[in-house]
Formats: sequence, structure tokens, C-alpha cells
Amino acid sequence: MYIIMVYDVGVDRVVKVLKKGRQYLTHVQNSLLEGELSPGQFKRLKHEVAKIIDDTHDTVMFYVLRSENYLDKQRLGVATNEPDDFL
Amino acid sequence: MYIIMVYDVGVDRVVKVLKKGRQYLTHVQNSLLEGELSPGQFKRLKHEVAKIIDDTHDTVMFYVLRSENYLDKQRLGVATNEPDDFL
Repeated sequence: MYIIMVYDVGVDRVVKVLKKGRQYLTHVQNSLLEGELSPGQFKRLKHEVAKIIDDTHDTVMFYVLRSENYLDKQRLGVATNEPDDFL
Repeated sequence: MYIIMVYDVGVDRVVKVLKKGRQYLTHVQNSLLEGELSPGQFKRLKHEVAKIIDDTHDTVMFYVLRSENYLDKQRLGVATNEPDDFL
């Protein structure tokens, strides 16, 4: 399954959520990751992210597709404006 | 076609990009919009967003699906943490 993850979390948790996301997915742009996961991996990712976030303030959206083949990607602007170097 | 739009733009352009996005799509969470568009609407949205952003610093990703039927959405945390009230 192909996963797109978009997070909006408090500043104290941004680095933790990004690090966790990058264990499973590719960092595409600020607050956005994507990649192919097995159902088991996706379940673990959600479980681990749920433990990090404050669910009274933070939001993490997962878009789940059966395959990346259903997806066309079109980008405006630069390829990324948040280098992963700071991690 | 079903469009997911994720933007990461300089603070000076955030409100402009959000306002433009909301003319076409539904604001889902901070920096994230989605909705059903015709090919013509999508073309106009991209054109208008491209005029707003600084394409040496900003990034806007559009995920394009033939139909929302291909998409499962799963959310952790609150339904939104950025009310649209400030617009």
C-alpha cells in the first residue's frame, strides 16, 4: 500500500514525528512524507506516531492508496526547502 | 479528478496561497487542502498558485487521483488545529 503522511504538530514534537516518519517513509517536503509500506508497517507507524503526538492539539493525516500507480504527482517550486541535514 | 494539495511557502505568502487554494479546494489541516476538480479547474489553480509563490524558495505538491474512490483517509489527533477564522 502507498502512504502519504501529512503532519501538523506542536513545535516540541516536530522533530520526533519527522524522525519516526522517516523510519518508514521518504521525506518529500516540510511536514510531508510518502512511501510504500506493508499493512503491518503502516499499522506500526500509526501506533508509534500516536504515542508521540498530543492528540488534543496535533493532527496527522494518512492518505492510503492501494498502489502508487493510482497517483500522479505535480510539483510547483523547489524540490525541497527543508534539507534533512538538521536531523 | 481528486486533488490533494500540500504547500510549504514563505510566511509572507501563506495566507495568499491558502486563500487561493480555498477557492478551489477544502482546507483539511494546516498546509493541506483537497477536493474534486475538473481538469480545467486544476489547471487554473496551478497557474494561479504559480503566480503567488516564490519558486526559488516555496514548494507546492499536488497529488492527482482519477477519483476519491481510490483513497482511504485515516487521521490521528484532532480534526483540525488551524481554524479558518483568521481569514
